[in-house]
Amino acid sequence: MKLGLIQMSVVNNKAENLKRAEKYIKSAAMNGARIVVLPEMFNCPYDNSYFRAYAEGLDGDTVRQMSNWARESRVILVGGSIPEIHENFIYNTSYIFDETGTLIGKHRKAHLFDIDIKNKIKFTESEVLSSGNKSTVVSTKYGKIGVCICYDIRFPELARKMVLEGAELILVPGAFNMVTGPAHWTLTARARALDNQVYYGLCSPARNEGDDYQIYGHSLITNPWGEIVGQLDEKEGVLIKEIDLEFQEEIREQLPLLRHRKEDIY
Amino acid sequence: MKLGLIQMSVVNNKAENLKRAEKYIKSAAMNGARIVVLPEMFNCPYDNSYFRAYAEGLDGDTVRQMSNWARESRVILVGGSIPEIHENFIYNTSYIFDETGTLIGKHRKAHLFDIDIKNKIKFTESEVLSSGNKSTVVSTKYGKIGVCICYDIRFPELARKMVLEGAELILVPGAFNMVTGPAHWTLTARARALDNQVYYGLCSPARNEGDDYQIYGHSLITNPWGEIVGQLDEKEGVLIKEIDLEFQEEIREQLPLLRHRKEDIY
Repeated sequence: MKLGLIQMSVVNNKAENLKRAEKYIKSAAMNGARIVVLPEMFNCPYDNSYFRAYAEGLDGDTVRQMSNWARESRVILVGGSIPEIHENFIYNTSYIFDETGTLIGKHRKAHLFDIDIKNKIKFTESEVLSSGNKSTVVSTKYGKIGVCICYDIRFPELARKMVLEGAELILVPGAFNMVTGPAHWTLTARARALDNQVYYGLCSPARNEGDDYQIYGHSLITNPWGEIVGQLDEKEGVLIKEIDLEFQEEIREQLPLLRHRKEDIY
Repeated sequence: MKLGLIQMSVVNNKAENLKRAEKYIKSAAMNGARIVVLPEMFNCPYDNSYFRAYAEGLDGDTVRQMSNWARESRVILVGGSIPEIHENFIYNTSYIFDETGTLIGKHRKAHLFDIDIKNKIKFTESEVLSSGNKSTVVSTKYGKIGVCICYDIRFPELARKMVLEGAELILVPGAFNMVTGPAHWTLTARARALDNQVYYGLCSPARNEGDDYQIYGHSLITNPWGEIVGQLDEKEGVLIKEIDLEFQEEIREQLPLLRHRKEDIY
């Protein structure tokens, strides 16, 4: 079963972003991807000042189009994330569709990105966004998929919870920057995949040279041995790789980390 | 405050191993190390067939000598690990001494190394060893130190528990092999340090070319940004590096992962 990650450029024009996402989804499906992932905030620039203006409810144009794309291309679509508005609160939300276009789950980013690395990068999502309060695992014809968003990946507890809930593949729309990206993006993906004995797919927007928030890119797929299966650079592109759940089972047999957990201690 | 890791060669002769450990501890202390770590099974070859023959109780020669070394060199000594015998059970145990030679804690390896990677490496500690059932954090004049042993490092829950119990530095005597070492030793150290915002020191025996169990070596110190501060190769050596708890505090302020945990979710 092939997984496709769409590292698209995101601009300050929702219609153009949607057109671009559609084009890439079709191309990924034509190239054999059965599960397709869009990046974090794929319809809206990653900047607090845009989130409210771009936000939609469940009846919005983006959600409707994502459902169509999944149905038309017969793919499981993890719709990156978009700003969701609900009762006047804004969330950073990933909608997930099955191959009939049915919404089968959604994840609201649970850990908001509030960091202040001196003279390097400051971002305060919580000024605009509210946070989700649950982990997300959806059932698909290809197995159970865990979904979390960007900064959520930094919390090993959340990964473990998804895996104990049965996730066999974890997909993470995310937009690290040029400080935390080179330092932590690949390291964290590889370690989470290894510790939890699952494949991880991290899907970033491409870098736009002019933007204030410089995105790291480097979308990647890691296997449960902690190896990189494939990785993009900072430019637009689609990464498609085979997910081998038999290999995953072998790793779990040979190095039985999940079975060796000792819950009486923790 | 300087941390010293002693990557010594371990041979099938307890007296010789003790002599070697003593020599290196003195040298590390003379070079400024205030906390000194010995490797896993530093007095006994890492092989199931030796553990019972080498095992000692609290009144054994190795424990007595470790206490003397700590007192004479005025160091906190994390005594790697040795086979401990208690009520006829054998444990893989780390004894920890303060600079007066007082035993301030001990850790029994909690997760036994039972793996079988086809045609590569098979080891079944549980055939001979019993496991500990608790996490270990000791208070010292340099702050709280968490200690776990080798395969214990693979469980993110244990690391988190030690940090939530106040550990500011985590020390891990360990003896990875030539399959899991190149694949996972450095990756896991860096990720645990990053996720938990603490320094990690991993201390391995050196590799002996003739041994059945080929040890990876590569003892290292990682900082809370996930960077390698220093690392040895496979040969005998001592690694001494500064542990900067102010830098650790800065990281925790700028990227407040521990504060951003959401226990209501996990």
